Amino acid sequence: MISVERIRATMTRYVECVDAGNIEAIIALFAEDAVLEDPVGQPQVCGRAAIEDFYRRSLGTGKVSATLTGPVRTTLNGYGAMAFRVDMFWQGQASTLPVIDVMEFDEQGRIRSMMAYWSPDDILPYG
Amino acid sequence: MISVERIRATMTRYVECVDAGNIEAIIALFAEDAVLEDPVGQPQVCGRAAIEDFYRRSLGTGKVSATLTGPVRTTLNGYGAMAFRVDMFWQGQASTLPVIDVMEFDEQGRIRSMMAYWSPDDILPYG
Repeated sequence: MISVERIRATMTRYVECVDAGNIEAIIALFAEDAVLEDPVGQPQVCGRAAIEDFYRRSLGTGKVSATLTGPVRTTLNGYGAMAFRVDMFWQGQASTLPVIDVMEFDEQGRIRSMMAYWSPDDILPYG
Repeated sequence: MISVERIRATMTRYVECVDAGNIEAIIALFAEDAVLEDPVGQPQVCGRAAIEDFYRRSLGTGKVSATLTGPVRTTLNGYGAMAFRVDMFWQGQASTLPVIDVMEFDEQGRIRSMMAYWSPDDILPYG
């Protein structure tokens, strides 16, 4: 089973990569057959190629910054959860989107699934 | 579908009830056939009677306080996620446990499932 230290390091790295807009580095964290649902309730995105396409569409259109807002929570069976904020322009306004991601890891430490909890209703004015 | 306002209100109330140690009020938030996994990786606790027993064992043994550490995140399909901290004595030391809960709600606004992401490894000195 993947260690809690590895879960923490990978999830922290994920937020750093989103903040840097480094899509290649984000994709490298995912398993080949990973599944992503972002936000939860939307159709699932399955497999690395589709996930890469998802990030290019999500992050390729403008600068966003991403910041952890508390410690990564870990479980002893290969899951992690973290709260972070994404600062961006939304409908022309500087805005902050609070997000919680839950990730499941495989035995090689790659992301097997990612569920992102947020809705447009959660978006706040930046600050 | 349950509204995002209702999800926010119920999850905020849950943390207030844990903080107050009000077990009857906590139980009233759950559906009769709810399922709880706390922490994720432990056997699931199924049904209100077993859930009540779980909270009596978890909260009945000493004062804990619980505080939201950011906004509740909502989804448009009846889920919510929140980061909070539980302050308590752990092995004789004043300690803080950071937790993330993910809850699913039924159409009556009751908690259908609750997944709590934390491990003993996440516990920090109080502060």
